[in-house]
Amino acid sequence: MKQKKISRRQLLGKMAALGLVLSQDPLGKVIQQGVPLPQNTDDPTKKLGVFPGKLGTRSSAEQLEKLPTFTSSRSPLQNFYGTITPSDLHFERHHGGVPVILPEKYELLIHGMVERPMKFTLTDLKRFPSVTRICFLECSGNFRSGKEEMTPQEICGLTSQSEWTGVMLSTLFREVGVKPKASWFLAEGSDAAVMTRSIPLEKGLDDAMIVYAQNGEAVRPEQGYPARLLLPGWEGNTSVKWLRRIEVADAPFMTREETSKYTETVKDGKVRQFSVVMDARSIITFPTYPVTVEKGWIEIRGIAWSGRGKITKVEVSVDAGRSWYPARLQEPVLDKAHTAFRFLWEWNGKETVIMSRAFDETGYRQPFYEELVAARESKGGYHFNPVTAWALKGDGRVFLDNNDFSGISWEK
Amino acid sequence: MKQKKISRRQLLGKMAALGLVLSQDPLGKVIQQGVPLPQNTDDPTKKLGVFPGKLGTRSSAEQLEKLPTFTSSRSPLQNFYGTITPSDLHFERHHGGVPVILPEKYELLIHGMVERPMKFTLTDLKRFPSVTRICFLECSGNFRSGKEEMTPQEICGLTSQSEWTGVMLSTLFREVGVKPKASWFLAEGSDAAVMTRSIPLEKGLDDAMIVYAQNGEAVRPEQGYPARLLLPGWEGNTSVKWLRRIEVADAPFMTREETSKYTETVKDGKVRQFSVVMDARSIITFPTYPVTVEKGWIEIRGIAWSGRGKITKVEVSVDAGRSWYPARLQEPVLDKAHTAFRFLWEWNGKETVIMSRAFDETGYRQPFYEELVAARESKGGYHFNPVTAWALKGDGRVFLDNNDFSGISWEK
Repeated sequence: MKQKKISRRQLLGKMAALGLVLSQDPLGKVIQQGVPLPQNTDDPTKKLGVFPGKLGTRSSAEQLEKLPTFTSSRSPLQNFYGTITPSDLHFERHHGGVPVILPEKYELLIHGMVERPMKFTLTDLKRFPSVTRICFLECSGNFRSGKEEMTPQEICGLTSQSEWTGVMLSTLFREVGVKPKASWFLAEGSDAAVMTRSIPLEKGLDDAMIVYAQNGEAVRPEQGYPARLLLPGWEGNTSVKWLRRIEVADAPFMTREETSKYTETVKDGKVRQFSVVMDARSIITFPTYPVTVEKGWIEIRGIAWSGRGKITKVEVSVDAGRSWYPARLQEPVLDKAHTAFRFLWEWNGKETVIMSRAFDETGYRQPFYEELVAARESKGGYHFNPVTAWALKGDGRVFLDNNDFSGISWEK
Repeated sequence: MKQKKISRRQLLGKMAALGLVLSQDPLGKVIQQGVPLPQNTDDPTKKLGVFPGKLGTRSSAEQLEKLPTFTSSRSPLQNFYGTITPSDLHFERHHGGVPVILPEKYELLIHGMVERPMKFTLTDLKRFPSVTRICFLECSGNFRSGKEEMTPQEICGLTSQSEWTGVMLSTLFREVGVKPKASWFLAEGSDAAVMTRSIPLEKGLDDAMIVYAQNGEAVRPEQGYPARLLLPGWEGNTSVKWLRRIEVADAPFMTREETSKYTETVKDGKVRQFSVVMDARSIITFPTYPVTVEKGWIEIRGIAWSGRGKITKVEVSVDAGRSWYPARLQEPVLDKAHTAFRFLWEWNGKETVIMSRAFDETGYRQPFYEELVAARESKGGYHFNPVTAWALKGDGRVFLDNNDFSGISWEK
């Protein structure tokens, strides 16, 4: 910590030099008026500021951006604090781009194995009892590697968190009367890809929602405006955006996105299908590439999350995995939510490797890269959630540390 | 609820008319492909949408705005869902406009009755252990009246909520070594008003923070960029924005904002001073002016909050105060935070008055307008938090209901 001590005498001297006055307040206590901001030659107290406006803006010194490709756009995790993702910086992953849907023309059809097939307008959806919850959304393809000079945004920027508001899907299912033999439903989007996924009815009756609001306002177009499915803890593509149709059935529909895509190879040439729950994961977001840190106290910060419930523990290692210490978790720890973790550490200036690993309510531990490669016989793919290690150099620079950079890079 | 039932036969007929095909999936189940969105002539599935971008946007159908005057700007509460206020829609209240402060020139001086006077740069502040919390901020002058045609934004749009991140002020106080006899501190902003308030040291050592982040990113310029004081539950002006100086002392400083301003008259010509804690309050945000509702099920929605702790109960009346029922509170209910409440009600179409009242952990009940007028001998002023009543007309229109519209209007 850089500390510049100044005495009262020095302060008074400075003030006198600047022609500032001391005055007596009503209680007789000497108070200083107009103590200047040292080093600040453009004194902001000497000009009237900007009047209140209709819409606030970011400081020109804080212009954050997502990192887009043709099919996705990644959140700048290394620039975030806390757990809420600003809505315009929420990651994007589309299969046919963002459609334009007029709210007054929006309709959601629920049919199939139901007693009363129905269509719901946006106004209809908003009339039902509403629920608000904070949770993360993560793309199951959220792992990239390839070089030392990578930011958290490049490595796993396809995860974001919002406060969502909408109607429980179970409420709508009661309205249409799901038939006893039903066990799955199809969710279909109205984008150019007509994104479709089969979801077990059990999830639909548990915590699934149809959401029309995000972080206090209408869902953003990129996030499914005017309404999307939200399956807390499940891989992002199952939370079908621009949702227009739900068909209830007694078997999965075997769509493209659960057969040729969003499946992953495991040992012995086998393929895992309907692996929809996001496993526990964490990533240090500070200090990481491209920052340079100084010797001394560093608060190692990051986020941890699990699709299976609450994060119970995050452990941090500052000696390349030889020893692990529990990080402080920010309360309240919410179910299926990004959880901020912090670990205060005094760095002695010597080269080392720092890393974090998350644990969840099920007892699951975030695996190491080598464990995942062995289990999957692959160096990436869906649901690839390895411990991310960061090499801290003697000069304070930080780089992604990975024994094996042959995984796919984020541009792909 | 408008319900249009369609049978499978009708659906198949429609599909055939549109030349759509049925296909057999791998499991042999008949699936429908490309079921059209009825009424949607501009089928969004037939054009490639917009690619992912660097920054998301609002839908053109959802352009929210604050309501500005020269000194404040009010949040559109009636358009919000959940509890987070989008950062660009957070209310504003300035005393000298928004100053432009370069982050690299920012310094916070802590001096007075301390062992080691110090200056902290923004980088210094960010090196300390950090904390994240969600809480509301409300201007103590958050009450307007004057006519029937008023929105929640006009009545009490000077309250907003964010997830804030920063350093506990107690951490900085430990760093500088507050002297044993100290009991107050001065917080001074670097705006053109050089906004100053005296704060009891006890609050500074309790939950006061110096925050540099809001809703996941840097604090917005209108909210005190690059760093502001945050006093959870206290009147907004005490959470001094663009904070540049803290002076520790053993008495209040009796600044303009706690003598000529931000005090309120009470009975018998007396004046209340340092009445800084925001009392419990609630407001229905739906249905309110200017919406028109239909007969049948209506979910009455609103927010409730208290500067003294958690909201324990919100009661709703749908018969002009003759009977009261508990509303559902959205979990988790947080300390000193906007809490969403909901009350499902079947409206019979007859003219009535609806209202809400909040209770907090201290047992406090939000007062009626008449109670406040009697206690204050005034029809408005600071800390004026009456129950807000809404007249629901037989045709479904909603208006502010107040026996007395002689209070000051929002434009003032």
